[in-house]
This record gives sequence, C-alpha cells and structure tokens, in this order.
Amino acid sequence: MKYGARNQLTGKVTEIKKGTMMCQVKLEIPADSKMSSVMTIDSLDDLNIREGDSVKVVVKAVNVLLVKE
Amino acid sequence: MKYGARNQLTGKVTEIKKGTMMCQVKLEIPADSKMSSVMTIDSLDDLNIREGDSVKVVVKAVNVLLVKE
Amino acid sequence: MKYGARNQLTGKVTEIKKGTMMCQVKLEIPADSKMSSVMTIDSLDDLNIREGDSVKVVVKAVNVLLVKE
Amino acid sequence: MKYGARNQLTGKVTEIKKGTMMCQVKLEIPADSKMSSVMTIDSLDDLNIREGDSVKVVVKAVNVLLVKE
Amino acid sequence: MKYGARNQLTGKVTEIKKGTMMCQVKLEIPADSKMSSVMTIDSLDDLNIREGDSVKVVVKAVNVLLVKE
Amino acid sequence: MKYGARNQLTGKVTEIKKGTMMCQVKLEIPADSKMSSVMTIDSLDDLNIREGDSVKVVVKAVNVLLVKE
Repeated sequence: MKYGARNQLTGKVTEIKKGTMMCQVKLEIPADSKMSSVMTIDSLDDLNIREGDSVKVVVKAVNVLLVKE
Repeated sequence: MKYGARNQLTGKVTEIKKGTMMCQVKLEIPADSKMSSVMTIDSLDDLNIREGDSVKVVVKAVNVLLVKE
Repeated sequence: MKYGARNQLTGKVTEIKKGTMMCQVKLEIPADSKMSSVMTIDSLDDLNIREGDSVKVVVKAVNVLLVKE
Repeated sequence: MKYGARNQLTGKVTEIKKGTMMCQVKLEIPADSKMSSVMTIDSLDDLNIREGDSVKVVVKAVNVLLVKE
Repeated sequence: MKYGARNQLTGKVTEIKKGTMMCQVKLEIPADSKMSSVMTIDSLDDLNIREGDSVKVVVKAVNVLLVKE
Repeated sequence: MKYGARNQLTGKVTEIKKGTMMCQVKLEIPADSKMSSVMTIDSLDDLNIREGDSVKVVVKAVNVLLVKE
C-alpha cells in the first residue's frame, strides 16, 4: 500500500463519539512520528523558522483520513 | 492561545525544502501525541474500527498548518 | 462560469441525508470524467506510478463542493 | 483495505506533470462512479437541490489523495 | 449560481505570482464581508468564544477557490 | 504569534449554532482584508483573470480555522 500523502502515522483508537450524521475518532500516536507541512515560501518567511525550532502543528480533524489496512 | 482544531501537536523542524513558490517543512513528533479524525458515520461503518484498534492516520501536507508561538 | 479548480465533474443527485446541522449529498457521475491530484514530488516517488497505471482516488466528502448553475 | 472517506473512485493515470517541488497527476474516471459531498444544511438550503437534479462537482486537486494498492 | 459553501466573498485581484506549476493570487476583500467556520463542539468549548468576541480567522491559501462568473 | 497561512483575517463572532457534535460560527469581517488563493497554473489559465478583476472567493466552512489570541 502506497499513499500519495506526506503524513502517514500509526494511531491507536482511544474513543469514538457519534453525532447524528458525523462522528469523531480520538487516537493516540504511540511512537515518535514524522510529519510534513506544505506552504507558500511567503508563509515560511512570515513564520521565520529554522531547523531545530519547535512549532505548533495544527490540523482540523475533518482533514484527517483513517485507513484500516 | 486557543485553536479551534482537534489536532494540536508539538513538532520539531528537521528540514526545510524550497521549491520556486511552495516549500515543505519536515517535522518530528514525539510519541504519545493525541490526534482526532472527523468523518461521516457511514465512513465509520465502512472502517469497522473499535477502541484499541490500530489504524493508519493519513493527512496531506497542504492541510497541516504550522504556528510559531 | 470559470472555476479555479482542476476537478469539475457533472453529477446527478441520488440521495440527500440530513443530520442536525450537517448533511450528506450522494451523487452519480454519469459520464467518463477527468480528475487531477496535486501532491509533492516526494509523494509521487513513494507512489511509484506511471501513465497507464490504475490508482485509487480518495477524497473526503467535506472537501467536495457542489454548485448549481 | 478500508478508507474513512466517502469518495473512493478508481482512476487511470493519463499524465504526470512535474514542477520543482509539487506535481500534478491527471486521471480518467469511468462513467457511473459514485461520489458524496458533506455540507451544512444552510448550504443545502441555498443550493436548493433535490434528488434527480444535475450539479457541478468541484474539488481542488490538492484535496485529492491517490493510493496505489 | 448557487454554491454549497458558507463562505462566498467578493474579491479584487491585486497580484498574481507564478511558480513553475503552482501560482498565488492575492486579493482584496471589502469590509463587512461575512464568513463562517464549522468545527466540533469540543473545539468550540476549547475556544471559549461568545457572540461579540473578536477572533483570528485562518485559512490556508490552497483551500481558497476562485470563481469568475 | 506567527501562522503559516496566507489568510489571517480578524472577525467578530455574530452567531453560534450547535448541532449534536459539530457547530457553526458566523463571523463579520469588520475591516478591509487581504486574502490569497493558491492553485495550479492550469487553473489560473482557465480562470483567465488579471489584476483589477473581480472574482468570487469560495471557501468551505470546514476549512476555516478560528484562533482566540
């Protein structure tokens, strides 16, 4: 299985909350993981980050896809 | 600082790759981070997952926002 | 009408399901259609695909916009 | 393989265009594919669509994920 | 023309920047535009906002669709 | 606070609507604002826009992130 996405973490389901049509799955990421962000160079210049810097990584839950292999 | 997003991890920048207009920032995420996914209940039924199950967590890098606090 | 998006298919509504605040519209795509995916070259290298290959095309329903012309 | 997404089409790669860091993969989708859109009920009311109606289905290419099974 | 999206602003193009495959269009939006955000109630509770509060509205440029009517 | 996103507007909350699991926050953008859209050059060619042109700016509400500073 090969995915055309830079972020592929392994998660463990800790809770499932159901609404009427949508639901929310909570996960724990057990191991150290790698992630990537793509942005414009204009945004990178605004952020003013360098290798070694600590940053907040924010993702809306609707953009997180789960796959059961 | 409060973010209206379920996924707020702390990452360490490991590499910055620049194209002509876009760039890619690679990050390391420590173990035991928490994430969430929102989907339709139809999708949850297809996935057929339960608490304790292991899943693949896939996110396109364009949907990952970095913030420098 | 011109849209700044690579994917513009024609669909026929087959079902509408309403939750309390969100809803889900199911569609049939009657004719052969063209689609496009944009990703990093790193992701393309991982996928290892070539012209003529068959791939799975996955899109979360929240990222599908309907327009009534 | 189970995906937590409502849209899972089968496509055939017809062209790959590379930039410096990003690339674009063009695909052909066979007729009679099924798709879904999730939106607010407010948006549905604005659209004013019913079963049987024809609509335009618009997706930005960055939100299309390819998987090679 | 009816769009199934809560955010439909009118903008004026002020600059177009081209990369090798991607480009960036800068816009000016007039005062008194209306916008909407959809999130989980969990996220709303974290934000702790009420009517009348001032908030930062953040959108990645890849998720902004332009249409020429 | 620095955000890696091209769109950072200031909004005032005018209404909050709650569903069972998701909610919708309506906003007013009081001042003239700047926005940006990133797309493929192919999409730009289709749009056929120039500086000074007026365009519709469409964003699905799920892709709008609110931050309380």
